Amino acid sequence: MTDKLKEECGIFGVFGASEAANLTYLGLHALQHRGQEAAGIVTSDGSQLHIQKDLGLVQDVFDAARLNKLPGDRAIGHVRYGTAGDGGIKNAQPFAVDYGNQPIALAHNGHLINAENLRRELEGQGAIFFSSSDTEVILHLIAREAGEPADRIAAALQRVEGAYSLLFLTDRQLIGVRDPRGFRPLILGRRGSSHILASETCALGLIDAEFVREVQPGEMVIIDEEGVRSFFPFPTRPLARCIFEHVYFARPDSIVFGQSVYATRVEMGRELARQHPVEADLVIPVPDSGVPAAIGYAEESGIPFGLGLVRSHYVGRTFIEPTQSIRHFGVRLKLSPIADVLRGKRIVVVDDSIVRGTTSRKIVKMLRSAGAREIHLRVSSPPTVWPCFYGIDTPNRQELIAASHTLDEITRYVTADSIGYLSLEGLRRAVGSEDGSGYCDACFTGRYPIRFPSEAPARHLKVVEG
Amino acid sequence: MTDKLKEECGIFGVFGASEAANLTYLGLHALQHRGQEAAGIVTSDGSQLHIQKDLGLVQDVFDAARLNKLPGDRAIGHVRYGTAGDGGIKNAQPFAVDYGNQPIALAHNGHLINAENLRRELEGQGAIFFSSSDTEVILHLIAREAGEPADRIAAALQRVEGAYSLLFLTDRQLIGVRDPRGFRPLILGRRGSSHILASETCALGLIDAEFVREVQPGEMVIIDEEGVRSFFPFPTRPLARCIFEHVYFARPDSIVFGQSVYATRVEMGRELARQHPVEADLVIPVPDSGVPAAIGYAEESGIPFGLGLVRSHYVGRTFIEPTQSIRHFGVRLKLSPIADVLRGKRIVVVDDSIVRGTTSRKIVKMLRSAGAREIHLRVSSPPTVWPCFYGIDTPNRQELIAASHTLDEITRYVTADSIGYLSLEGLRRAVGSEDGSGYCDACFTGRYPIRFPSEAPARHLKVVEG
Amino acid sequence: MTDKLKEECGIFGVFGASEAANLTYLGLHALQHRGQEAAGIVTSDGSQLHIQKDLGLVQDVFDAARLNKLPGDRAIGHVRYGTAGDGGIKNAQPFAVDYGNQPIALAHNGHLINAENLRRELEGQGAIFFSSSDTEVILHLIAREAGEPADRIAAALQRVEGAYSLLFLTDRQLIGVRDPRGFRPLILGRRGSSHILASETCALGLIDAEFVREVQPGEMVIIDEEGVRSFFPFPTRPLARCIFEHVYFARPDSIVFGQSVYATRVEMGRELARQHPVEADLVIPVPDSGVPAAIGYAEESGIPFGLGLVRSHYVGRTFIEPTQSIRHFGVRLKLSPIADVLRGKRIVVVDDSIVRGTTSRKIVKMLRSAGAREIHLRVSSPPTVWPCFYGIDTPNRQELIAASHTLDEITRYVTADSIGYLSLEGLRRAVGSEDGSGYCDACFTGRYPIRFPSEAPARHLKVVEG
Amino acid sequence: MTDKLKEECGIFGVFGASEAANLTYLGLHALQHRGQEAAGIVTSDGSQLHIQKDLGLVQDVFDAARLNKLPGDRAIGHVRYGTAGDGGIKNAQPFAVDYGNQPIALAHNGHLINAENLRRELEGQGAIFFSSSDTEVILHLIAREAGEPADRIAAALQRVEGAYSLLFLTDRQLIGVRDPRGFRPLILGRRGSSHILASETCALGLIDAEFVREVQPGEMVIIDEEGVRSFFPFPTRPLARCIFEHVYFARPDSIVFGQSVYATRVEMGRELARQHPVEADLVIPVPDSGVPAAIGYAEESGIPFGLGLVRSHYVGRTFIEPTQSIRHFGVRLKLSPIADVLRGKRIVVVDDSIVRGTTSRKIVKMLRSAGAREIHLRVSSPPTVWPCFYGIDTPNRQELIAASHTLDEITRYVTADSIGYLSLEGLRRAVGSEDGSGYCDACFTGRYPIRFPSEAPARHLKVVEG
Repeated sequence: MTDKLKEECGIFGVFGASEAANLTYLGLHALQHRGQEAAGIVTSDGSQLHIQKDLGLVQDVFDAARLNKLPGDRAIGHVRYGTAGDGGIKNAQPFAVDYGNQPIALAHNGHLINAENLRRELEGQGAIFFSSSDTEVILHLIAREAGEPADRIAAALQRVEGAYSLLFLTDRQLIGVRDPRGFRPLILGRRGSSHILASETCALGLIDAEFVREVQPGEMVIIDEEGVRSFFPFPTRPLARCIFEHVYFARPDSIVFGQSVYATRVEMGRELARQHPVEADLVIPVPDSGVPAAIGYAEESGIPFGLGLVRSHYVGRTFIEPTQSIRHFGVRLKLSPIADVLRGKRIVVVDDSIVRGTTSRKIVKMLRSAGAREIHLRVSSPPTVWPCFYGIDTPNRQELIAASHTLDEITRYVTADSIGYLSLEGLRRAVGSEDGSGYCDACFTGRYPIRFPSEAPARHLKVVEG
Repeated sequence: MTDKLKEECGIFGVFGASEAANLTYLGLHALQHRGQEAAGIVTSDGSQLHIQKDLGLVQDVFDAARLNKLPGDRAIGHVRYGTAGDGGIKNAQPFAVDYGNQPIALAHNGHLINAENLRRELEGQGAIFFSSSDTEVILHLIAREAGEPADRIAAALQRVEGAYSLLFLTDRQLIGVRDPRGFRPLILGRRGSSHILASETCALGLIDAEFVREVQPGEMVIIDEEGVRSFFPFPTRPLARCIFEHVYFARPDSIVFGQSVYATRVEMGRELARQHPVEADLVIPVPDSGVPAAIGYAEESGIPFGLGLVRSHYVGRTFIEPTQSIRHFGVRLKLSPIADVLRGKRIVVVDDSIVRGTTSRKIVKMLRSAGAREIHLRVSSPPTVWPCFYGIDTPNRQELIAASHTLDEITRYVTADSIGYLSLEGLRRAVGSEDGSGYCDACFTGRYPIRFPSEAPARHLKVVEG
Repeated sequence: MTDKLKEECGIFGVFGASEAANLTYLGLHALQHRGQEAAGIVTSDGSQLHIQKDLGLVQDVFDAARLNKLPGDRAIGHVRYGTAGDGGIKNAQPFAVDYGNQPIALAHNGHLINAENLRRELEGQGAIFFSSSDTEVILHLIAREAGEPADRIAAALQRVEGAYSLLFLTDRQLIGVRDPRGFRPLILGRRGSSHILASETCALGLIDAEFVREVQPGEMVIIDEEGVRSFFPFPTRPLARCIFEHVYFARPDSIVFGQSVYATRVEMGRELARQHPVEADLVIPVPDSGVPAAIGYAEESGIPFGLGLVRSHYVGRTFIEPTQSIRHFGVRLKLSPIADVLRGKRIVVVDDSIVRGTTSRKIVKMLRSAGAREIHLRVSSPPTVWPCFYGIDTPNRQELIAASHTLDEITRYVTADSIGYLSLEGLRRAVGSEDGSGYCDACFTGRYPIRFPSEAPARHLKVVEG
Repeated sequence: MTDKLKEECGIFGVFGASEAANLTYLGLHALQHRGQEAAGIVTSDGSQLHIQKDLGLVQDVFDAARLNKLPGDRAIGHVRYGTAGDGGIKNAQPFAVDYGNQPIALAHNGHLINAENLRRELEGQGAIFFSSSDTEVILHLIAREAGEPADRIAAALQRVEGAYSLLFLTDRQLIGVRDPRGFRPLILGRRGSSHILASETCALGLIDAEFVREVQPGEMVIIDEEGVRSFFPFPTRPLARCIFEHVYFARPDSIVFGQSVYATRVEMGRELARQHPVEADLVIPVPDSGVPAAIGYAEESGIPFGLGLVRSHYVGRTFIEPTQSIRHFGVRLKLSPIADVLRGKRIVVVDDSIVRGTTSRKIVKMLRSAGAREIHLRVSSPPTVWPCFYGIDTPNRQELIAASHTLDEITRYVTADSIGYLSLEGLRRAVGSEDGSGYCDACFTGRYPIRFPSEAPARHLKVVEG
């Protein structure tokens, strides 16, 4: 319904907690914004791994009966956003397999860029794949290694390229790994004597756990009865943390890459106000994601902050469209203008990004119908012009409006009086990296931190599920 | 999960629209905040009435198949909030019955105060009740009258006392009635050649309809092939519009009782700032309902507005609690503090009302754990001290914290540094009625606009469903 | 899927048993053949009545959670077969209502022939009907009477005409009533110190209860803490027990109207063999209902009994038909021929009745395709030529093949080599009533035991549910 | 609920039919008796394979929407009975995987005896297993071979030992294979220009197809656009067709191993009558499986055949047990005695087999409570004393009553007046193999046709699903 980029996953793990499955359930709930298609939990009782996963939101997938089938004091969990093509229960994570007498489960946030080539190679050696997920390649590579689980994992990961924050659960250990470039976040927390690994710090708050530190790029953290140990099994790489986590993905109450997401977004709004000032009567956010930047814009500009759009709490996945055309339908299900606030006013409306432009156009038209006199769209990130290959679901380049249209054309398309994008420099300042080092901003610049492998040709014969 | 008063219903009707069921579905979706327990639609194809209703949210109750079973160009719909005691599908509305050869359907927002006495009287005459709802009394009274539907309705309503905004659908007519005191809102809209009746104007926006006017207190509106006619069949009564619609129930993008809900709430915040100023670093709302008043407070006080609490979009009805105690659980599922915003700050937190005080206490403690140095709770309504008998689900008087505790005791209980309630005078000024005339404020004052009938004694024998 | 007449209901009640709901659940399971559309149970805990009912088979409607919501040591239950027109949950029984402070529940097997007229009369007095069931009339009549429940029931039933075996449950009593003509069965059983009322004795076996006696036509049985009392509140009428209970409806392990159903059906087969002998190699039943009569035919004729048709256990309500035409589809889902048994043989196939003839035609053709040389259809009842108005769902007269076709035409239509129907005299002898007295055989003879009221004209305005 | 051995699977395939999925759905319905836990269908549209499978009966798993997702003119399907340990959707068949660009699907009836050893070997080579099914080993072996699908399959199957009737579907071919000993049945049929492979001939009747011939033991049948070709890629082995297919598994209307199942069972009954005659008044079957043998016994003995037990059609998977003890509960849900038939009589009751003896005991007691004077149990197979390793789910040896008890002890346990088992010689005569050659009768004799591999030790670490 909305025109946003989609995060592909959130992960959560806990070791040494008497209610491991329940805590994971709550942790996943707090990470629900990172993926709404499927949810799963694997627990270990010290010998067997127990798995439950299904399509749906965390609270729909799990009830008391299902959580009761997950005994043990250690667990990992996963929430997934899936593109249409690879949907289905078979791609829901965690994955759990037996390697002979060694069960292992895996949850992955990120995307491997050489997965298809590795898959072809493994298939050539007789491997059978049970999903269409890039993540499964890691399991096959581990299966081909020998030794202790941590050694096998480290060895297997030498072969993969791309973005990965990973949680593994064996009978005895919870292992977290973050790729050497650090694309996706992964943090370490503590709750009494139990240890936690999670995508974002917001998962800690709900369960009264405290933030310990980020898992470092390239770090492998092994948690078992003996405590937490740290290894750096990979060659060092330049950091390439996803700058879009700050722009949109992460929850505003999280600390990501060492910085408060909320404060960073407010700062983006301030930068935006400095870069694209305009005479106006009211600054309003596109709720909820645009709120912090709108607050920053309002503060910096001195223009009053107000609520011009109300967000409905009751919009689910499926909605029946009337056959009679209704203007701005879709957006209206989720957002309603407050005419009384807008009427006759010059409005600055702050959003975090523009992808296809279709939603922005509907919002602008809706505000205008509600009586706004001028509408100045301010976007707290640069134009999105390149697809992501590191775990974000982006449309094709031709669908990205900024990839093929000038600012002027976009302004006319969305029917705004003006549009102002935050500059790359402004965004970098807001995240505290003047030169952009340490961040991947390929979606804005096309400067991809990893060279692409020559691509395997597409398959046309395959198994399709429902 | 939250400690709010609950509205009991929203109603929507349309006449002369080719997609009457679809439009009603959308209208009910826009009124979903007025009731989440059950939803129903009745359509008329000119002879038969068709009914579909069930427990659940509008979008869960209705899918394409179900809407297709609702032919006809006129419809009424209902969303219901139900107290535990009268839950169940049998109380879901609209009700639809045959009076001999005359089918009629009814949807009700409000509450009748002499329903139990009327029920005893009717039962004494051999009437059988199929629900435990006060609304059913109206159907039995109509059944005992003769003549055209509108005449029967008008005659029957002479006998009931209380709050009612009603929609009736017969084979030929859509009839709307608002009680002479005007407790609950009801508005008239238009969409091309079709006419609409709805609880709030926010239901018009989603379907591209325009606001025509309020249905007047004591007015009966008859809509049929000949257009809209208006009658005033009841003796005039002093107006008693529910002031709490402005405080909390109505959606901020609605016009209620002739006034913008959003603007009224911002004004409440300004009044509050004038009445209860405090030195502080940040004004934050309890989202989402506290946002407009917090904006007003921030503007009037000059203290910056910020977001200190994030609201989750993914909280459904059922959530599994961990057996290990987690602090502020429940509230944390819905609200998370942004520690980075709060740390070391003196915070003004603005909420619309305090009912039992339990949620306020959790919020204050949560803010404090997140590092806030001082917490000043500001409430944009007076202390809630009396139960409502006109369609709002209030707890017993002993559960209303302000009914039995001093301000000081409440402040200590919720552990705030200070609490400031908006005065009754301030609230009246904000709604534009200096002397309070035209409004029912019994929940704050105990001045009930209708004298109570001597109550029928409680039944102890009865039929209980699931 | 099959072309059988449908029984409309089964009823079961128990008083004084610690697991009343569970026993009723089992009793209804044993009566499932009398109605598969809906099932319901009402229990009494001495003050409140508790109700659970839904569409579906007994075992689908009730699970442990639902049975746990039915406390108390007394209960009544109902299984329902419903015609398309009056389906829906609103017609599922038992019905339970409050008469002021007096809750009462009702389960009905049978059909009232003056219900529509009574309904018009009651509606004219202001009564509102919540179902389209004839049974509801009884509740309204009772509501208009005064005194103790049993007195009110007896008074109310003076006004109804037709077939009724009824169970009532109040806070204190379980009351069973059988109409003075005794159309439908009703029996009394005992299980330790608890008393049982049920449609058929087969409901006793499953719960280790013993058969005490039939409830007499015109008898009202009141069961309460003081035991079982019997009354005969109605004027005596000629007996009119439904002869079709013996032909098809009742389960073969039941005693109905004082006679073993199985033995009676075997005897029908013997009569049939005497009346319509034929030279043949094998007697086969249409399973399962035709088995006893086929055994009787085989014994009397000396022709070997065999199984030529296998019945599938896995046929549910909905089955997807292939778009390609498949011969005898529908019947084949349920019945398969055993070619090896049939090939080259002269077959006597015994069925209990022919309604429309369509299924018989498919069976004969299926047997012929499987290699049968001759097919002689023997029917253990006379031609069905008149509709039933006493609780059986019969097609319109024009659909009853025997109503408008000669034996010769029917034989050609079903493509059998011969057809032999049991004569009315033969059927009467089999049930032990040479002159037919004591039985209603209107479906064969058109001699209806009750004169019809002049019918109320059909309604064309009404409320329709899903 | 019953004490029967359980068949593990039924398979069905069709090539060249415009409604391949629909026909497979119907074919599986006809094979439902071979497995009720899960059902699945894979179709091929010439390039992609489409798969739908789930837990439940065929008619519950598939509806029109789901069948519509299965395009193509070729399909294979599977119904599964699963033991508790390996239940779950992950073991539901068919399995479908991509081998690089080559999708292949597999459905299996039977059991491999060296699967665990092969699995360990494959896991040692880095293979990952996604199920706990023995069948998956075949997929991994095929993945390790090169060449055309048929060649890879033939090569892979050289390594497996045990019972297998297999159906493979690729983009271009439907391939059927029956193991060289022919444990499980597999037949070839034709429907117009389309070809069919199925476990039993009963699947042909429902879809108007004709029986062509058995697939031979050791035969591989390749069906594609060019027609049907036959290969014999395996060394010849002594035949070991499962004699229990005749005793109980197969449907009586099937031709299995070249013989009518019904006729064979009647003959078993005749043999039984000759071997174990008794003076009695009535021969009754334990329905439905005991019917043919009871007919045979009655004919041979001259004792009348009757129905002393009625089978309910309404028993599903889950049933709530009353907490009060009810005699013979469980059996009574499914079977009811007809007291009127049994009272005072000397009864021969014919069943096909005795496994644990618990059900027989309940039946005998139930018949006795219903008044039978003498009860002579006749069993149309020899004592079951050894477990099966070829695709039948048998209890542990210690649970097989005949493995550890004398006939006298069993008779006393089941409380019968006498028990007579059919002798092995009698059974062999009935199936037309005087010396037993061509059949596996290991469950009666312990003479297993394949030597067991030394077993891999049990795993204690593993992944467990729900």
